[in-house]
Amino acid sequence: MPKHQTTYRVIYGDTDKMGIAYYGNYLRWFEIGRTEMIRSWGLPYKSFEDRGIFLPVSEAFCKFLAPAQYDDILVIRTILNTGLKAGLKFDYEVYRQADEKLLTTGYTKHAFMDPQGRVVRPPKFLRELINEHIQQNLSSEE
Amino acid sequence: MPKHQTTYRVIYGDTDKMGIAYYGNYLRWFEIGRTEMIRSWGLPYKSFEDRGIFLPVSEAFCKFLAPAQYDDILVIRTILNTGLKAGLKFDYEVYRQADEKLLTTGYTKHAFMDPQGRVVRPPKFLRELINEHIQQNLSSEE
Amino acid sequence: MPKHQTTYRVIYGDTDKMGIAYYGNYLRWFEIGRTEMIRSWGLPYKSFEDRGIFLPVSEAFCKFLAPAQYDDILVIRTILNTGLKAGLKFDYEVYRQADEKLLTTGYTKHAFMDPQGRVVRPPKFLRELINEHIQQNLSSEE
Amino acid sequence: MPKHQTTYRVIYGDTDKMGIAYYGNYLRWFEIGRTEMIRSWGLPYKSFEDRGIFLPVSEAFCKFLAPAQYDDILVIRTILNTGLKAGLKFDYEVYRQADEKLLTTGYTKHAFMDPQGRVVRPPKFLRELINEHIQQNLSSEE
Repeated sequence: MPKHQTTYRVIYGDTDKMGIAYYGNYLRWFEIGRTEMIRSWGLPYKSFEDRGIFLPVSEAFCKFLAPAQYDDILVIRTILNTGLKAGLKFDYEVYRQADEKLLTTGYTKHAFMDPQGRVVRPPKFLRELINEHIQQNLSSEE
Repeated sequence: MPKHQTTYRVIYGDTDKMGIAYYGNYLRWFEIGRTEMIRSWGLPYKSFEDRGIFLPVSEAFCKFLAPAQYDDILVIRTILNTGLKAGLKFDYEVYRQADEKLLTTGYTKHAFMDPQGRVVRPPKFLRELINEHIQQNLSSEE
Repeated sequence: MPKHQTTYRVIYGDTDKMGIAYYGNYLRWFEIGRTEMIRSWGLPYKSFEDRGIFLPVSEAFCKFLAPAQYDDILVIRTILNTGLKAGLKFDYEVYRQADEKLLTTGYTKHAFMDPQGRVVRPPKFLRELINEHIQQNLSSEE
Repeated sequence: MPKHQTTYRVIYGDTDKMGIAYYGNYLRWFEIGRTEMIRSWGLPYKSFEDRGIFLPVSEAFCKFLAPAQYDDILVIRTILNTGLKAGLKFDYEVYRQADEKLLTTGYTKHAFMDPQGRVVRPPKFLRELINEHIQQNLSSEE
C-alpha cells in the first residue's frame, strides 16, 4: 500500500479552551496528508482539477485517542487504501513527533467527479498514476 | 430519543474553491447541534465544565450526501443516542432549509472527563438530566 | 449612516487555549455583519455575484478591547460608511449581549470587482440600493 | 530590525468560493510568522506562557494587494517593529513563493499579560531576548 508522511505544527488558532487541538481541525490535517501524498506521485491534486477531475469527500471518520497540544509537531501518515473500486479511500494516522504517540486515526472516502458535479469512473491518467505507485511500493517492500 | 433542531447560515468563510461548504466545517456544525440540544435541557454545556465535567469527542463520522452552498440556511437536527453506557453519542442530520434536502449525516461519541483529563463515570446531575429528557420525550411520543 | 445588528454565539471551535475567542474569527464575524446588513436591504450579497459583482476585501482592521468568551452571544453592529467613492467601507462594533460590553471594533474596505477580477465602478443597481438606504436612514433619524 | 521568514502552503480548506484564500486566514498566517520568529530566538512562545507571560493581540491590520491561490506556497516575512514601548508590534509581508509577488501586508500589536489577565511590563527575560536579537541584527546588517 502506498504510504506517505508529512508534518504540521499546531498553532494557537487550532486549539480550543480545553487547551488542545479542536477536533474539526483533523479533517484539515487529513487534507494536508492526502494532498502531499498525491504530490509525491509527481502530479499535484491541482492538476487533477485542471484536467476536469475533482475528488469530493463522501465520508470522513476520526477516532481521537489522545489530544494534540499547542506547538506540537504532528506527523500525518497517509495510506492509500486501494481496495475501493468506485473511488479512493485514504487512511490516516496522526502522531506527535516528539514522543511518537499515536493521537488520531481516521479515513476519508472520495468519489471521482467531473466539473458538472457528476460522479464519473476514474480517468485513465489517474488509474495509471495510482497503479504505478502501488507497483513501486510493492517492489520497495520486497 | 430526545431530538433537537437548530439552524446555521453558511458564510463565505465556510466555502471552498469548489464553491461548496468545506467538509471540515460539519464538525463545527455538529458542535452547534449538540450544544443547543443540551441548552434546551435547561443547563448549558458551559455549566457542565463549571461542575468539572468535560465531554471530549472520542469519535466523529460524517457521510456527505449533497453539498451545502453559500448562504444556505442549514437545519441541524441532533438526536441523543442513549444506548451508550460509558459516554454519550449524538447523531446528526444536516438539511438545507429551502428544499429540505438531506445533505450530511453523522455522529459524535463523547467520554466523560474530569479536569485532570481522566475518564470518569457520568455524574449524577447529568444522568438525571438525560433521563428526565428521555422520559419527557417518551411521553410526548405517545 | 445605515446601521444593522445581528448576533452570533461563540462555539468551542472559535476559542483558543487562552480560553477566549481566537482573534482571526472576528473577520468571519465581520463578514456575518455586512452580509446580514446587505440582506436587510432586500437583496442578498449572493445576488450581487449572480449579477457579476464581487466585493473582495481590500483592507481589514480589528481593535481588540476585551475578549469574547465561550458561549457568549455577540452582537455584531455594522455601519455602512458611505464616504468611500471607489468602493464600500463597513465599520463594525462587536458587543457581548449579556452585559453590552464593547469587545472589538474594526472595519473592512471592499472594491467592486467583475468576474474577470477587474476593479470596476459601482454598478447602477448597487448605487441605487445604497442611496435608497441612506435616504431611508436619514429620514428615520430626523 | 529583526526579520524572519517561514512558509505555508494554502490548502483547500483555506480557500473560498471566489477560488482564493479567505481573508480571515491571513491572521492565522501572521500567527505562524511571529511564532516562528520567536522560536528562532531560541525560546518558543510556549515557554513564555510557561513563565506566566501571554501576548494577546490588541490590534490587527491587513492590506490585501493580490489574492493567494490554492496550493500556493506563501512566504511569510515577519519584522519585529521595536518602536513600541508598552508591547510588541510585528509587521508582516506575505509573498507567493513562485513569482515573489507581494500579496498581503499587515501588522499585529500585542500587550504583555499575566495569567490573571492584567497588562504588565515586559519581563526581564523577554527584554534581554529581544535586545540580544536587535543587537545581532544590527551587527549582521553592518
